[in-house]
Amino acid sequence: MRVIVIGAAGAVGNCAVEALSARHEVIRVGRSSGDIRADIEDVDSIRAMYREAGKVDAVVSAVGHGYFGPVHEMTSEQFMQGINHKLLPQVNLVLEGFDFINDRGSFTLTSGVLNRDPIPGGSCAAAANGALDGFVLGAAVDMPRGIRINVVSPEVLEVSRQKYEGFFPGHVHVSNEAVGLAYSKAVEGCLTGQVFIVD
Amino acid sequence: MRVIVIGAAGAVGNCAVEALSARHEVIRVGRSSGDIRADIEDVDSIRAMYREAGKVDAVVSAVGHGYFGPVHEMTSEQFMQGINHKLLPQVNLVLEGFDFINDRGSFTLTSGVLNRDPIPGGSCAAAANGALDGFVLGAAVDMPRGIRINVVSPEVLEVSRQKYEGFFPGHVHVSNEAVGLAYSKAVEGCLTGQVFIVD
Repeated sequence: MRVIVIGAAGAVGNCAVEALSARHEVIRVGRSSGDIRADIEDVDSIRAMYREAGKVDAVVSAVGHGYFGPVHEMTSEQFMQGINHKLLPQVNLVLEGFDFINDRGSFTLTSGVLNRDPIPGGSCAAAANGALDGFVLGAAVDMPRGIRINVVSPEVLEVSRQKYEGFFPGHVHVSNEAVGLAYSKAVEGCLTGQVFIVD
Repeated sequence: MRVIVIGAAGAVGNCAVEALSARHEVIRVGRSSGDIRADIEDVDSIRAMYREAGKVDAVVSAVGHGYFGPVHEMTSEQFMQGINHKLLPQVNLVLEGFDFINDRGSFTLTSGVLNRDPIPGGSCAAAANGALDGFVLGAAVDMPRGIRINVVSPEVLEVSRQKYEGFFPGHVHVSNEAVGLAYSKAVEGCLTGQVFIVD
């Protein structure tokens, strides 16, 4: 298969690359590194990325960030950071991708743990995650040509333990291999409309 | 208790009014009817509503709509209708409400069935619902002064059966009383960070 991985150099995207690159042609995409450079917050950049990549069998997105801070001090603009930097770019990858994805291909998005196991200050991210989980469930029933869509929702990665030290008390840390298996199932498996939880 | 119900004249909001008005002072809010007129898609209108209402013990929101159409024909702007017309107005009711809600008060938002039991063309609404469900889970752990936050996620209402005829095959229809109980639990109960499913 030809697989685009957006956010390939990130901790989560790297799990997908590790899991898939031995068996598939993986096209690495990043804002500042990779086989193709693209900023998926810019729809024109998404379109240019697809034109450069050509037809693919799978699109894997492992990008996005949100605002962190107490909800009672959060502004509407801060809340929207999760929508604009995590939800909408990944949705746009799907909306713009139909002309470039082969029959029976797949889209795999990435949400995260905070809409099932919250931390203080995480309401913006929890909303973005919930929206992504809901979107794939809703979108799966519309997909033409046997195309599938799923989302991977990983706990904190073992490799990110130090980066997030103190922010996720009591949360488990998951291995690159465990996260990679979820992307493998999404890309190489048969299910659609699923939230693949890794925790 | 003093309870604001936004969208009081709608089918869902009416369930909350019916369930709460015998025991509480209910302030009905609507765009074109009610004790206070407000358009919660406009933050200034939300602020004016709160100033007119004064201090309250509970805020119930039963408003919002999204775009319906196949995901492979949906534009980014159409997708954002669910964010701008259902998610963000309800989130803004919370963000703007802290100065007007009493200690141990509650916010109750409304999502819906489509992020657990999808229908064709419902991916925009499913994303908005998922975002609302995620938001309350994340926000609950931040809430100051014992304030609670929950979301009611109802199936199609019996009173809306004809309006949605043919769009929700096999879905159950729920009574006003069943939906009202969920708002009663959210406003008068003790739980927080919950999605109260009615189906």
